[in-house]
Amino acid sequence: MTAEVVIVGIGQVPVGEHWELSLRTLAARAIQAARKDAGGLKPQALYVGNLLAPTALHQSNLGALLTGNSGLEGIEAFTVEAADASGAGALRLAYMAVASGYVDVAMAVGVEKSTEVPDAELEATAAEITDYDFEATNGLTPTAQAALLMQRYLHEYQAPPDALAEFPLLAHANAVNNPNAMFRRQFDLKAYQKAMVISAPLNLLDKAPYADGAAAVILTRPDLAAKDLPQPLVRVVASSAAIDALALHDRTDPLDFKAVTHSAAQALHQAGLALEEIDLFELHDSFSIYAALSLEACGFAPRGEGCQLAQSGALRLDGKLPINTMGGLKARGHPLGATGLYQAVEAVMQLRGQGGANQVREARRAMIQSLGGPASTVITHILERV
Amino acid sequence: MTAEVVIVGIGQVPVGEHWELSLRTLAARAIQAARKDAGGLKPQALYVGNLLAPTALHQSNLGALLTGNSGLEGIEAFTVEAADASGAGALRLAYMAVASGYVDVAMAVGVEKSTEVPDAELEATAAEITDYDFEATNGLTPTAQAALLMQRYLHEYQAPPDALAEFPLLAHANAVNNPNAMFRRQFDLKAYQKAMVISAPLNLLDKAPYADGAAAVILTRPDLAAKDLPQPLVRVVASSAAIDALALHDRTDPLDFKAVTHSAAQALHQAGLALEEIDLFELHDSFSIYAALSLEACGFAPRGEGCQLAQSGALRLDGKLPINTMGGLKARGHPLGATGLYQAVEAVMQLRGQGGANQVREARRAMIQSLGGPASTVITHILERV
Repeated sequence: MTAEVVIVGIGQVPVGEHWELSLRTLAARAIQAARKDAGGLKPQALYVGNLLAPTALHQSNLGALLTGNSGLEGIEAFTVEAADASGAGALRLAYMAVASGYVDVAMAVGVEKSTEVPDAELEATAAEITDYDFEATNGLTPTAQAALLMQRYLHEYQAPPDALAEFPLLAHANAVNNPNAMFRRQFDLKAYQKAMVISAPLNLLDKAPYADGAAAVILTRPDLAAKDLPQPLVRVVASSAAIDALALHDRTDPLDFKAVTHSAAQALHQAGLALEEIDLFELHDSFSIYAALSLEACGFAPRGEGCQLAQSGALRLDGKLPINTMGGLKARGHPLGATGLYQAVEAVMQLRGQGGANQVREARRAMIQSLGGPASTVITHILERV
Repeated sequence: MTAEVVIVGIGQVPVGEHWELSLRTLAARAIQAARKDAGGLKPQALYVGNLLAPTALHQSNLGALLTGNSGLEGIEAFTVEAADASGAGALRLAYMAVASGYVDVAMAVGVEKSTEVPDAELEATAAEITDYDFEATNGLTPTAQAALLMQRYLHEYQAPPDALAEFPLLAHANAVNNPNAMFRRQFDLKAYQKAMVISAPLNLLDKAPYADGAAAVILTRPDLAAKDLPQPLVRVVASSAAIDALALHDRTDPLDFKAVTHSAAQALHQAGLALEEIDLFELHDSFSIYAALSLEACGFAPRGEGCQLAQSGALRLDGKLPINTMGGLKARGHPLGATGLYQAVEAVMQLRGQGGANQVREARRAMIQSLGGPASTVITHILERV
């Protein structure tokens, strides 16, 4: 019933603290890079993933702002918001618009400028993604949510305090070769063990840094893609979204990321694929514990064994299921509403064979998954090299 | 190529100052009312129109919040934001989801709780819909934008200061019979002439009041609608969106609402209709001047003659083109991100013959149009009685 959808353009700016660049400039650079990558193709619709602009910059209606600043005047545009899965939401909307035949060429751009918020206020500001009336007002911020889940996890599975160390270690190792990553340096287990605890038992290296950034992808139908594109096409073979209760206290089993399970299963079903056929997985490691819980909820590891999977080496670039091949949220950086589109850009690079020193061998199918909060919203896409 | 889409359920709560009700409660009531109206039908996706929750309530990710609070756990959900056209954006997304075949039953809900912001700060908060870095930081709020356009309009067409009076007069007259309206009282020309000027030449009666409210519609395909629904079906025959420059200073002719022209023309083209075939028009009178400019940009009146059209009586309930039949934004009230869905609910009521004392005779086709800011974003739908 639906048309085939391919990604023909990708663009990104380095993730970091862009004191000198405005939100509109960051977005325009990613948009221009994606258009250039797609041979100049102009989208008819722009869907914007963003979380903090209304609170941090007093700026809403980014659709009108960004089209006007990127040479896309007049086209349909609006913002999609789903906490830190906003970028993936914009990608899903662009996919639906093309697959349905409404739009021939759609662009999804994710953009975030979190450095506009003073560091001391950033965690409180980001707490808008919790159930504010019941969680944040009682002091439960996103980091505190993750700490509670980590504490429960370590207790439930009698795991040592450094059980999750391999996730940030791996992310930082992969980021070394990514020129767009925020932290391009490795660290060792000893550094993890000595890292400052920021919300017990969670330490500084368990948390992805909020950051500035922008990334964009262009989607169209294969019959509309120019025949002379320099890059191979990447097909979007699945797109799915699921929701869990926003507040942790409304869940019966907080260590069960139910929406991850549903969203991943739906995506695999849509693509007609088994888990074993996924060659790499860009997962949402906003906190180390979320990486473990996501792997388990998808079915890549039995419950309680996500850490062992990481420790086995299976998730490294030369392992059975490479994850976060360009550094993930932890080391590439986590520009909240833009993150889902960085994941998409990085997966496309792998499937095109543009992974450089981090190229995953014979990468044919990539799963990318964004979480809004503690898997309150989960959006999963599967991409395949044509 | 696309499936037919019908509206089978509508729900609303009275617009006003709901000091005792939370955002989640307002939304849940509208959602429940719409589901009841649709014979209990459960949507598979919920698209939320909202503007102020992140800034006014510190609350993002309304998709997860509202599904959990409305008995819709687990279904796809996220927020669409396009300034005060957010509700219409959610409706457009729900339409696309059903028309494309991705979703059998979709719901769009608009919800706003602007009374959480102290009155003294509300206009400054709403200024996030301008180009904040260049407009709001220099003192240009939404009301000041409208005042500039009104001043230019009165000057350009040598119109008297009360040229626009008929728009709020008509809106208030229609709201008397709408139990969900915020202001159910009429006023006369003298009252308009004496009204307090709030941003010269714009007076208090030229501006729709920010308010609290929630409204929802349920969309599905006709073959999936229960055969025994108590209400006639209403078909969505067109949906379109267009963008203009966000900042007024980036437009060559500020009195030309170009995105209104494009969006309306696209919608008429999609529906295969001429302007004359529209029986009623729910337009976006956030300011009187925007009502005049919208009528002109759509082509219902020549440029500079929107006021005369109003003064001729043609826009009253018994006129040639009734507008804002339940009071419009001015008198029903303007709950920002929810407004587009109030327009949809009211148009459906008219097409079903549920207009009560305000029923438009032989209402078969309704156009509804939402503006984000000064027509920076414009979203137009055309509904038709089956």
